[in-house]
Amino acid sequence: MDAQDFRRFGHQLIDWVADYREGLASRPVMSEAQPGDIRAKFPAHPPQKGGRLDEAVAALDRDVLPGITHWNHPSFFAYFPSNTSYASILADLVIAGLGAQGMSWQTSPAATEVEEVVMDWLRQMVGLGEAFTGVIHDTASTATLTALLSARERASNFSQNGRGLQSGDAPLVVYASDQSHSSIEKAALLAGFGRDHLRLIETDDDHAIRLDLLEAAIAEDVRRGLRPCAVIACIGTTGTTAVDPLAKIADIAARFGPWLHVDAAMAGTAMVLPECRDHWTGIERADSLVFNPHKWMGVGFDFSAYYVRDPEHLIRVMSTNPSYLQTKQDGAVKNYRDWHIQLGRRFRALKLWFHLMDVGVEGVQALVRRDLGNAQWFKDRVDAAADWERLAPVPFQTICVRHVPAALKGDEAALKAHNLELARRVNEGGEAYITPALLKGKQILRVSIGATATERAEVQALWVLLNEAAAP
Amino acid sequence: MDAQDFRRFGHQLIDWVADYREGLASRPVMSEAQPGDIRAKFPAHPPQKGGRLDEAVAALDRDVLPGITHWNHPSFFAYFPSNTSYASILADLVIAGLGAQGMSWQTSPAATEVEEVVMDWLRQMVGLGEAFTGVIHDTASTATLTALLSARERASNFSQNGRGLQSGDAPLVVYASDQSHSSIEKAALLAGFGRDHLRLIETDDDHAIRLDLLEAAIAEDVRRGLRPCAVIACIGTTGTTAVDPLAKIADIAARFGPWLHVDAAMAGTAMVLPECRDHWTGIERADSLVFNPHKWMGVGFDFSAYYVRDPEHLIRVMSTNPSYLQTKQDGAVKNYRDWHIQLGRRFRALKLWFHLMDVGVEGVQALVRRDLGNAQWFKDRVDAAADWERLAPVPFQTICVRHVPAALKGDEAALKAHNLELARRVNEGGEAYITPALLKGKQILRVSIGATATERAEVQALWVLLNEAAAP
Ligand SMILES: Cc1ncc(COP(=O)(O)O)c(C=O)c1O
Ligand SMILES: Cc1ncc(COP(=O)(O)O)c(C=O)c1O
Repeated sequence: MDAQDFRRFGHQLIDWVADYREGLASRPVMSEAQPGDIRAKFPAHPPQKGGRLDEAVAALDRDVLPGITHWNHPSFFAYFPSNTSYASILADLVIAGLGAQGMSWQTSPAATEVEEVVMDWLRQMVGLGEAFTGVIHDTASTATLTALLSARERASNFSQNGRGLQSGDAPLVVYASDQSHSSIEKAALLAGFGRDHLRLIETDDDHAIRLDLLEAAIAEDVRRGLRPCAVIACIGTTGTTAVDPLAKIADIAARFGPWLHVDAAMAGTAMVLPECRDHWTGIERADSLVFNPHKWMGVGFDFSAYYVRDPEHLIRVMSTNPSYLQTKQDGAVKNYRDWHIQLGRRFRALKLWFHLMDVGVEGVQALVRRDLGNAQWFKDRVDAAADWERLAPVPFQTICVRHVPAALKGDEAALKAHNLELARRVNEGGEAYITPALLKGKQILRVSIGATATERAEVQALWVLLNEAAAP
Repeated sequence: MDAQDFRRFGHQLIDWVADYREGLASRPVMSEAQPGDIRAKFPAHPPQKGGRLDEAVAALDRDVLPGITHWNHPSFFAYFPSNTSYASILADLVIAGLGAQGMSWQTSPAATEVEEVVMDWLRQMVGLGEAFTGVIHDTASTATLTALLSARERASNFSQNGRGLQSGDAPLVVYASDQSHSSIEKAALLAGFGRDHLRLIETDDDHAIRLDLLEAAIAEDVRRGLRPCAVIACIGTTGTTAVDPLAKIADIAARFGPWLHVDAAMAGTAMVLPECRDHWTGIERADSLVFNPHKWMGVGFDFSAYYVRDPEHLIRVMSTNPSYLQTKQDGAVKNYRDWHIQLGRRFRALKLWFHLMDVGVEGVQALVRRDLGNAQWFKDRVDAAADWERLAPVPFQTICVRHVPAALKGDEAALKAHNLELARRVNEGGEAYITPALLKGKQILRVSIGATATERAEVQALWVLLNEAAAP
């Protein structure tokens, strides 16, 4: 393809994307494809000859879209918002067009320096102090793994430069709540701590970590000669957006010495609102923090914001410095390859830059306020309805409910089947998409509000839909 | 921004990308920015009000491009090719436009199934057997870390589900050559093995791992009661594209039991040519393999291809399965979140699909053949010139040379300074970009041929340029 073809296909695909976005509301939210349906539309062997991009473009509507679950659909209430704004889409086009590598400063100084700028903007936006320095990671999962590796190396005085975790010394232990995201368990296991040294502490009725049990677990480990290595506090758990009591966890961490990592993957975006910042009082005492602008903020996936108080430590854990990667500016600049696991990196900072230039801080704030308001509206409906039960507080934009018809009250097995069936009806009906999940053994319906296109009307429609689906 | 604005900006940016690509040859390859130059063009605080995307678009030329090192420039000979084809750029636009998550099959069946299709196409293209199953990783660094974690868990019988690496058992050991990429050292340290348990084996005059030393190191470790855990064979090292003798390494691995991981990040693409496949004879005996279509093949970063022979094992190491991620199809489909470290994932398969539809297998082959031919042409010039020395074989597209004027012969310090100065002149001149590096203590100039836009003319021009820069 030459530049002229690129222009032609490019203009066509810009319009295709716009058409797709504009037509979203009329599509079923969740893909109706059955396993194998999409695969069957593709040949078993790669095309020998080229010149067939027009066929691929034509196949987008026919063969690909039926297999897409529409995360930007106005009635997407499942999992978490994964919003990709128009500005962010355009940035991704530019990023790909430039095709620049940001692994070292010299490999494209703009990739590094625009990242420094926008990560500092973002720090200010969520009210973090200057003690924090940010870097773009791909996902919260990777950032949390990085945090646990940093914790491991701090607690073990850089065991990686010696015998590693295989030192035979007293084992290191990691603590988080039983509501913490699966990425924390994954990170702890991958970092080599072992499941025996991961304590998933019970939570209270609001699904926040129980401080008494956390403290007791740490004290008991210390007594047994184990070494507390890291505590993860979650501001906005995945299940219910529960908020762990950060300041008090920081007190405990200060007493026993472990690294304090904060997972605010979903809820961090809410901190653009000053009125939400009470939820993370104590954040300044964290060693590291991750939140995902690629969820609620509108910056397209992947864009996780990882902030640390001690970048030197991070670099010491993550850097390798072979001669073919050295440049003469190394002392004076940031080489972000030393700030995470990957070497190569895209110029992702452009996405946040474009997005903020388009909507401004006030635009981000307005959407978050709208969504918090919508969640409260939904919560009030649930609370006022006799046959609906709410199973968690609603500090942000997620509401956890189940339908409890009088006839099934007290029959957990029947309630489970009933609510699973309800989710199935809603989701397979195509008009909205919610997540069925288990919360401490109970089958719940998780309603996560926050797709950029979701207005009050869609939330109201969901409430009607749920009640219709629940009707006998 | 509404859909109409998106169309307007979108058409403008498609043309901007095309103009940028068409004008590449007239730009200095390496950015001439000094540290802080680009940052200084941005305000210290984020925009409060939005509606300013037009300013950002206007700033691309003025404030961003001066900070870009042009990886798709026809005279880019540095590091490694990081080609992003037009078709791949278009795919990135579609990926962002869809904004779909591919973490589970259900979160967008097409993201999973198109990936299954194209990763199988790719497997066929490089002549791998059906015993291998592929998954897209972001980078080779992450894939190699995944391989070492898989090795660790196999050798330790899933220590992650018990005491982790902190078992106090006999330590696990990892082996690779002293020419292996820094990502291998990084992965070994992050996976918790510890530097004491990483053996970087010396290489022979062709910079391939010395089998006698590898075997002796493993045998010695076994004798001392340590446990050989993983051997990494490199097909195309970063420094010189040296080729480790894979079949013989596989013999040794079979004898002692370690996991065999192959790092063909750069050279894997060459395996689209049957005449290159001798270089990885024995590949069918590897446990895992990574190569980067995002380097030489033209698929835009990030797109690493990770192939394993035992996906069940990979999933056992990488999966966590909380209720909020479970879906009713789980048994019948792939959930790629369990195939790597990250949870969320982009629909990257579209990039390879679009690229192959555009150029076909034959198009990929033709470019690789062209580049191999250009490298041989350059090599012949070097070999015929009295004052140039070649320091490594040229099995692929990288040539490692240094200029050795008669007056400096034997004076290593002077040769080092002379060649560093030579690289500085070429790179700061802006007409080409090469990488100065150290090879076993010698200062070399690394010429990596393979940007899609690089024709014989640019390679000839580089040869002229180098000789001019070297002239007294
Ligand atoms: C609280 C929390 N942490 C971590 C994650 C993982 O996010 P990522 O896909 O960026 O790894 C999620 C996503 O659902 C989350 O809700
Ligand atoms: C042989 C080899 N392995 C690994 C890598 C790392 O690649 P990535 O940026 O995909 O992690 C490179 C890149 O230079 C390489 O040449």
